Amino acid sequence: MGAAPPPSPFAPKSLPSAGPVDGVRLAVAEAGIRYKGRKDLMIAVMEPGTVAAGVLTRSKTRSAPVDWCAAQLKHGRARALVVNSGNANAFTGKRGREAVEITAAAAAKAVGCDPEEVLLASTGVIGEPMNAEGFTHLLRQMASDAVADALLPAAQAIMTTDTYPKLVSANTEIGGVPVRIAGFAKGAGMIAPDMATMLCFMFTDAAIAQPALQSLVPAHADQTFNCITVDGDTSTSDTVLVFATGKAATRGAPLISDASDPRLAAFSAALKGLMHELAIAIVKDGEGLSKFVEIEVVGAEDDRAARVIAKSIANSPIMKAAIAGGDPNWGRVVMAVGKSGEAADRDRLSIWFGPHLVADKGERAASYVEKTVAGYMQNDELQIKVDVGLGSGTAKIWTCDLTHDYISINADYRS
Amino acid sequence: MGAAPPPSPFAPKSLPSAGPVDGVRLAVAEAGIRYKGRKDLMIAVMEPGTVAAGVLTRSKTRSAPVDWCAAQLKHGRARALVVNSGNANAFTGKRGREAVEITAAAAAKAVGCDPEEVLLASTGVIGEPMNAEGFTHLLRQMASDAVADALLPAAQAIMTTDTYPKLVSANTEIGGVPVRIAGFAKGAGMIAPDMATMLCFMFTDAAIAQPALQSLVPAHADQTFNCITVDGDTSTSDTVLVFATGKAATRGAPLISDASDPRLAAFSAALKGLMHELAIAIVKDGEGLSKFVEIEVVGAEDDRAARVIAKSIANSPIMKAAIAGGDPNWGRVVMAVGKSGEAADRDRLSIWFGPHLVADKGERAASYVEKTVAGYMQNDELQIKVDVGLGSGTAKIWTCDLTHDYISINADYRS
Repeated sequence: MGAAPPPSPFAPKSLPSAGPVDGVRLAVAEAGIRYKGRKDLMIAVMEPGTVAAGVLTRSKTRSAPVDWCAAQLKHGRARALVVNSGNANAFTGKRGREAVEITAAAAAKAVGCDPEEVLLASTGVIGEPMNAEGFTHLLRQMASDAVADALLPAAQAIMTTDTYPKLVSANTEIGGVPVRIAGFAKGAGMIAPDMATMLCFMFTDAAIAQPALQSLVPAHADQTFNCITVDGDTSTSDTVLVFATGKAATRGAPLISDASDPRLAAFSAALKGLMHELAIAIVKDGEGLSKFVEIEVVGAEDDRAARVIAKSIANSPIMKAAIAGGDPNWGRVVMAVGKSGEAADRDRLSIWFGPHLVADKGERAASYVEKTVAGYMQNDELQIKVDVGLGSGTAKIWTCDLTHDYISINADYRS
Repeated sequence: MGAAPPPSPFAPKSLPSAGPVDGVRLAVAEAGIRYKGRKDLMIAVMEPGTVAAGVLTRSKTRSAPVDWCAAQLKHGRARALVVNSGNANAFTGKRGREAVEITAAAAAKAVGCDPEEVLLASTGVIGEPMNAEGFTHLLRQMASDAVADALLPAAQAIMTTDTYPKLVSANTEIGGVPVRIAGFAKGAGMIAPDMATMLCFMFTDAAIAQPALQSLVPAHADQTFNCITVDGDTSTSDTVLVFATGKAATRGAPLISDASDPRLAAFSAALKGLMHELAIAIVKDGEGLSKFVEIEVVGAEDDRAARVIAKSIANSPIMKAAIAGGDPNWGRVVMAVGKSGEAADRDRLSIWFGPHLVADKGERAASYVEKTVAGYMQNDELQIKVDVGLGSGTAKIWTCDLTHDYISINADYRS
């Protein structure tokens, strides 16, 4: 590891906080897996009756913990979550599967549950064998020490190249009874919108049957985490898990067994809102970024085409470098629309940088004044809008620029 | 424009040269389209009977000159080629089409042919209206001054961010009669393998019917220019044109009217070899590169899948940054295979960096010694090989690393 990367210009001025979620206790430890002098291991212990839902990376080379979670999400019972940073336990073959089994067994013993009720995630270097025995002896004490008010240390323990912890919470209601959602995420590089391309863990005391929860989470992930990209690179380890302890039932909250139950509407909106907030927080901590960019595409053939076009713009290195340089180089937007492969008609295309129409129906707008738009590009947060002019498909993608610091961070990450 | 980018580490020590092609005369001029103090306009004048074949970008936002060439390639008669640098005449709407018509008319008048026998290409900034009247008055004198021995100045006149001219030639034979091929290309950024992602012009005195020539060129482009990538960005202006003057017939060369004629084999191989040489020369002048990389994929489901996987590796920013840093980060190769969407089985995957097996059937190779492989990564030219372990599909893609200089060049290009 070289020196720690400089903090993102979007790093919050103060640390976030989030109060406890009934039925969830957390603890962290310094396991020395890769980093020295910092917490790199967390456990969340959840009360009996907790269910888990999630979405996992679609990568064909997914990590051993992702394989494990996929198996456990079939039944969806959960009593513990163990996450380490510093080693992704990805592409580690048979030893990787063994490390997962050893960790689940140790956590199960520490918590007093079945290994199948332990969910796991690992983040960090790919391909390095992970020595589970190096940290599993810590789990018993951690499970015993775990406290409700430890969401922030947990969010910090799972960071890798993140420059700030991402922690959110909200109070909502189900059937008129207050319920609470809190959660955290990590992610800064190797971020692209194909399923949930980072780690995100949400906790709620709501009482929701696992199938109902499982039907909410992928749809929300598709509209939040799948709409962000830092570098177009999809991780082997991406994991979103949502845990519902059901403890709100003790205060009279109804058990929701059907995702279409209207009593779930406020909760569903709150959950999606928090996932959106975490997704934006990940982009705003994009490796080396100097600018945050919203790409909006309208007028595409359909929503799918709009998303492909928006991603083509968001992932173009030459466009991202222009943004880093504050250059209103809308010709590169035209290029990225053209290369997307989706239906487009050059002579119907219009482009805005913020409030400024820069290209109108296939050529530079008559009102375009380079100096004005170059001034707009000096902002930290930018909006680029494209009207394809063909249909009613729309999409929004959130991304960042490509800077010298991205190169430095990723040229030096392991050495 | 900022300062000129530093020369590529792969820039040849001396300027290339190529002798004349019978039936082709060239001239260059300083038209001041964007650059100051350098030649930015070229014309090639070809004798009556010349035919042209080509491949053009598949971008949905292709430039006005590309539209023009597409129309003229339907008949394939050619008497002149006019190319300018500094302005791509792309996304310039009605004015762009007018600029093309004005240029073709002026060149036709200068050469004494129909406007439809003039082929055109423009490279440079996108979206800036191009003032054709600013340079068309030069064409008459250029056509009159054109000489056979001016391939190098022509290759230099079409450069943009290129740091060296790319010029090649070969002698071959058809029916035992010597024929000659020479040509040049430009390209350094906004390079990705979707059709011919740059400008390339080849000239031969062979006598080949246009349909036969047209059936050779796309197949060769697919195996050469479509196998290179600098940044995954496909230009709006990519053009490969091959002109055959037929003058070798005066020395007894047969007229070839069928691409499958066995007498065309040596010529076809020579043409493909030169196109390959120019494709490699473009990657080796990739914007800001420090290393040239060959990505070879074997064992994929089929050749198409192999190419998708190879491109996924070649276009991954996080992989390219690791290469720039000399980091043998094969975990990022695993990631790129996984995100490609093509069939892959993590536990059958093997990876080599040069001669070094780094990952064997899904985990780090027992023989892997980081220091040895890190030493290999210090080379200027690198090979990365992936065996997917599933089928017999293979592909090779040529690319370069992603460096600080790429960011600098593309953040500053217009400002």
